[in-house]
Amino acid sequence: MAATYSTKQWFVKERSGDNVDVEKAFELVAKDLSVDDLKEGQVLAKAILFSNDPTQRTWINKDAVEGRHYRVPLKDGDPMEAYAIVEIIESRNGEYQKGDLVFASAFWAEYFILAPESLIFKIEGDPADTLTLGLTGLTAYFGLLTVGAATSKDSTIVVSVAGGATGSVVCQIAKNVLGVKNVVGITGSDSKCEVLKKTCGCDYALNYRSPSFKQDFEDSTKGGIDLYFDNVGGWISDMVIVKIKEFGRVIVCGAISIYDDMKGGAVSAGISRDTWMQVIFHKIRIEGFIVLQFTDQYAKGLTDLWTWLAEGKIQLIKQVWEAGIEDVPKGMSKLLNGENTGKLITKVIHSQR
Amino acid sequence: MAATYSTKQWFVKERSGDNVDVEKAFELVAKDLSVDDLKEGQVLAKAILFSNDPTQRTWINKDAVEGRHYRVPLKDGDPMEAYAIVEIIESRNGEYQKGDLVFASAFWAEYFILAPESLIFKIEGDPADTLTLGLTGLTAYFGLLTVGAATSKDSTIVVSVAGGATGSVVCQIAKNVLGVKNVVGITGSDSKCEVLKKTCGCDYALNYRSPSFKQDFEDSTKGGIDLYFDNVGGWISDMVIVKIKEFGRVIVCGAISIYDDMKGGAVSAGISRDTWMQVIFHKIRIEGFIVLQFTDQYAKGLTDLWTWLAEGKIQLIKQVWEAGIEDVPKGMSKLLNGENTGKLITKVIHSQR
Repeated sequence: MAATYSTKQWFVKERSGDNVDVEKAFELVAKDLSVDDLKEGQVLAKAILFSNDPTQRTWINKDAVEGRHYRVPLKDGDPMEAYAIVEIIESRNGEYQKGDLVFASAFWAEYFILAPESLIFKIEGDPADTLTLGLTGLTAYFGLLTVGAATSKDSTIVVSVAGGATGSVVCQIAKNVLGVKNVVGITGSDSKCEVLKKTCGCDYALNYRSPSFKQDFEDSTKGGIDLYFDNVGGWISDMVIVKIKEFGRVIVCGAISIYDDMKGGAVSAGISRDTWMQVIFHKIRIEGFIVLQFTDQYAKGLTDLWTWLAEGKIQLIKQVWEAGIEDVPKGMSKLLNGENTGKLITKVIHSQR
Repeated sequence: MAATYSTKQWFVKERSGDNVDVEKAFELVAKDLSVDDLKEGQVLAKAILFSNDPTQRTWINKDAVEGRHYRVPLKDGDPMEAYAIVEIIESRNGEYQKGDLVFASAFWAEYFILAPESLIFKIEGDPADTLTLGLTGLTAYFGLLTVGAATSKDSTIVVSVAGGATGSVVCQIAKNVLGVKNVVGITGSDSKCEVLKKTCGCDYALNYRSPSFKQDFEDSTKGGIDLYFDNVGGWISDMVIVKIKEFGRVIVCGAISIYDDMKGGAVSAGISRDTWMQVIFHKIRIEGFIVLQFTDQYAKGLTDLWTWLAEGKIQLIKQVWEAGIEDVPKGMSKLLNGENTGKLITKVIHSQR
């Protein structure tokens, strides 16, 4: 007789407008998974670690429309998705054996059945480090080096949400791999500023909540800015872009200030006329990207990142938070509130079965 | 005894904020030029045709600051500058002889002394055509083909200020040289729409002042937009950019809706949060440029443009306006009011001397 796994799984109850209330947006449903249900190529897996990514907020935006998003947005009633480290419990896939730890596109659930295309790669290193490097470290890697074409010739690089999972790696690649002279990180607390200076190689770490922020910014970017790695959007980005030098680049990786505030704040993205004129006058390139466009280059990116980690050129800033399945959605709130420093990882505490 | 030339010349009297009043911004001063004043390499030249370019408005913006502009902005008391076709009257420059017609960076005056670096090239073809091709045709050429990397694979290209000097050439290169399937021109009057459809190869010509504009725009861009050549900025650009397809490009060539309205309207450049999200989701590249960055490639650009002109692939839409020196500043008002179709050229009518 085949094994049955009792699980609890989060579904999208009602996609959210601004100011998401995770209690209302998601609902937890109990269900049983039977190994008999596994089709050829599928695995039954157990959630070990969930990746908390700001972009998940955009998947459940109530106005999200297919074709106007980088992926098919979730609908009410869909299972909530998340990148995760999962343990293979039962496998009908020749590439994965029971006990393997796999980086996967999974679900907010204790157990789930995954299709082969959801299994991204088998992990060998530390699970939390792996989750921090892929996809977040890869986002930093491809954004800065491929989209931004950053080199040691860039004398000043500014990074927003620098204390976040992606930003903290961007700062370290810029400083310790490329040797950029002036790396300026923008974040939201003095304690994160400490981490940016002590661990992430920032020459300047600026707290945007500080009353002296604008002056601090001017002081730290005196010669202008070569490259801006943007994770925030809004007024902070406007303040930075207007100071970009001739032929400078803006890498639009994310816009966490906007995701949960599409209409609540000003409708404008915050880009001023002064800044738009600079785009022309200074021949600025602004380019958005999604790490998924580099899937065929992940292997090279991960090799470089693991090497830099081994060489001490980058350190992974991560915060592992333990939660029973009931508390998993709170990870989204923590991210949007900026409670995390570095990568926020949910370690799933399983109830006894 | 050396000849003396009595001339009248326009100077910047008071740099302007929004809604320029050309009567207040400029003042006409009479002066005498003596051939004795010519230094080695200089020429004394006579204005034949002035190029009217929207960018001239930005040179006299009262908030313009050196280092925040693509050129040194003009100051109060400076002579007003303009690209022009000039006739050499006296030369102390071995490359130019008396009687030569030269494309030059000159001044709003009847006669002027020009330094060698202001003499851009000797012209051979029709003077008005030359003024239309360089720099405006070159702006279309390098913007669309080099910055935008447009090819026949781009199925829909949208051009704003399509009835202007640059836009009208962009549309024709897109349609008649590249063979783009769907070329959509946006302009401000029904008569300009006629020109766009009949002469510029536009599949759709949209009048942004029409009550059906938004619907017309939706109808003409059903499959999404590959490339947007932007000369206008503001809400029209926002409406276009939000519909750009994956890996689409926005070429920011100009922003005529902003130049004379930096503060008078909304401070925002008009880019909405929805649009900024599309920059990320659809991996859009937005890139500003100034034709001057391609100086070393002008020769190739002009060769191609003259060839296409000879082959009938492009026609030059131009409007030659005759003016005594006293009326020259009115050209700027005409441009900002959108009175011109195609390139607005001032033919200088000289008083008898």
